Amino acid sequence: MQESLSIPDTEVRDAGFFRNRIEENLLKAIGHSSPEELYAPMRYMLSLGGKRMRPVLLLMSNEMFGGNFEEAMPAALAVEMFHNFTLLHDDIMDKAPTRRAQQTVHEKWNSNTAILSGDALFVQSVLEMGKCDEEKRGAVLRLFLNSALKVCEGQQLDMNFEKRNDVSLEEYISMIRLKTAVLIAASLQIGAMLADASPEEQKNIHAFGENIGIAFQLHDDLLDMYGDEKKTGKQTGGDILASKKTFLLIKALELADDSHRGEIRNLLSNKQLLPEIKIKLMKNIFDRLAVKEHATKSINEYFSNAFSVLEKINADEERKKILRDYVEGMRGREE
Amino acid sequence: MQESLSIPDTEVRDAGFFRNRIEENLLKAIGHSSPEELYAPMRYMLSLGGKRMRPVLLLMSNEMFGGNFEEAMPAALAVEMFHNFTLLHDDIMDKAPTRRAQQTVHEKWNSNTAILSGDALFVQSVLEMGKCDEEKRGAVLRLFLNSALKVCEGQQLDMNFEKRNDVSLEEYISMIRLKTAVLIAASLQIGAMLADASPEEQKNIHAFGENIGIAFQLHDDLLDMYGDEKKTGKQTGGDILASKKTFLLIKALELADDSHRGEIRNLLSNKQLLPEIKIKLMKNIFDRLAVKEHATKSINEYFSNAFSVLEKINADEERKKILRDYVEGMRGREE
Repeated sequence: MQESLSIPDTEVRDAGFFRNRIEENLLKAIGHSSPEELYAPMRYMLSLGGKRMRPVLLLMSNEMFGGNFEEAMPAALAVEMFHNFTLLHDDIMDKAPTRRAQQTVHEKWNSNTAILSGDALFVQSVLEMGKCDEEKRGAVLRLFLNSALKVCEGQQLDMNFEKRNDVSLEEYISMIRLKTAVLIAASLQIGAMLADASPEEQKNIHAFGENIGIAFQLHDDLLDMYGDEKKTGKQTGGDILASKKTFLLIKALELADDSHRGEIRNLLSNKQLLPEIKIKLMKNIFDRLAVKEHATKSINEYFSNAFSVLEKINADEERKKILRDYVEGMRGREE
Repeated sequence: MQESLSIPDTEVRDAGFFRNRIEENLLKAIGHSSPEELYAPMRYMLSLGGKRMRPVLLLMSNEMFGGNFEEAMPAALAVEMFHNFTLLHDDIMDKAPTRRAQQTVHEKWNSNTAILSGDALFVQSVLEMGKCDEEKRGAVLRLFLNSALKVCEGQQLDMNFEKRNDVSLEEYISMIRLKTAVLIAASLQIGAMLADASPEEQKNIHAFGENIGIAFQLHDDLLDMYGDEKKTGKQTGGDILASKKTFLLIKALELADDSHRGEIRNLLSNKQLLPEIKIKLMKNIFDRLAVKEHATKSINEYFSNAFSVLEKINADEERKKILRDYVEGMRGREE
């Protein structure tokens, strides 16, 4: 036997490493209890894949502040389970037929099963989060649950906005902060808490998370209109067809003069036009108003804010770089 | 001023006292955060009233083991909030138009609002439960959440049973144990935990709770068929019309010979008959098979088991009596 085959002591714990550990543990955390009709949809939902961004960020933050990733694993699984619970219930509310090119739970089973297995997935996420160190349990759960409540508030605002035509950019940002950014921020902060980071560092990593969370959502808004269908897996302009209030639409309405504004509103309410035509015409208006450039500028600002906060954080430089590189990678994503 | 007007030091803390304290605190615990569309349905649901049995039992158990009811109040509110969350989602799944003679949340608002405000109510219940003493938080939350998961399992089994014609009495009892009894048992045990009761006493009070929980559900089954509509506020025979597998129906199928069994099955699947006729005919069969007597016997057995366990518990006799009297009162209820 050759000595060179000995296993090295240290391993680079980067996004790939964390993601593999998460995938290994996620389905195991649900288990195979009965009745099968309750547990199978939970496992199905978690097996649809995804970037596992929240748990990866939690583990990276934990690592950066000197934590032990194995101890932080239940918390990482918990945020991913919670995120999937929100997707499961959101899909019912949005009547979405597919997710990641597969049937949604309420389509594959039915709405009742989707409601109930969502509820159970949420229960399991809190149970999982509760497995953390006893001394930190209270604070971790409070942050997790208060963030969960904000996610519900954000989802309700999003639904309210569907019925309104006067949503301001400020209101929109508040909504995506609640619906999307807060959970990303909480994931990073929980990672920090479990590594005994100071309250100041926790505040900073939370602010970092809020900024990248908003940037990611604005990037999603942009991909919906300007992304490559083959890469995103979603129909280009889907948000326009669903009359969703996104950064692009709200910014366009804000920039437009009265005549342009009328044109946008007519286009949105027009039910005769072919979808492709509707999207093409809207894109023309967006181009005239340079909405894409405004969105890109805004996204860059949020990332820039995030990275300024990250700079201030006193942590292992090499591990900070792993987090920065991961977020930079997500910034350039086309899917 | 007369001396006899001085306020006494002690107060009888009985069901009425606890219930008043619960009512005083329940809506306050939800608060008036925004968006209103999320919080108003939660407050509405909690304001529909009810017996508040779970929190009353929690506080009585806590008192019996020498606890302080004010310290146990958040846990009491938590179980009531959780119970209302399950009702809110169950009403969507059952497409129930009314609850306590008022519109259900999904009728008054819509399904999406009912799903989401239910989710938020659940989040708030766990937050409230987490307010308990730090030393006990881990164990209390584990019991609460594991019980919550069992409630979901019970609800799924109940839905599975709707599609089956061969549900055994044993399966039915397992289902109601999960769907109903486990949360009552957990409420009592949490009250005991917060009062530092021993593991043995906790086990006993949990067993007491499971037995009364099953008895209450069987009593509900009986009231559905034999109760007074004016008192129950529900249509007599509603379970039969909904083809629900209840103790009565399962017992009837078990007792019946082949010809009776065929008669029951035909009656259930008959969509031509007027509801009143269908119920009357089913009642005739039940009478011939003495199903009511069997149910009463079974209910008495569960209560008797419960009271035997209660006898074993080493606690203040006067307060044990308050708990026993309360349960006896619920046993005779006609609504």
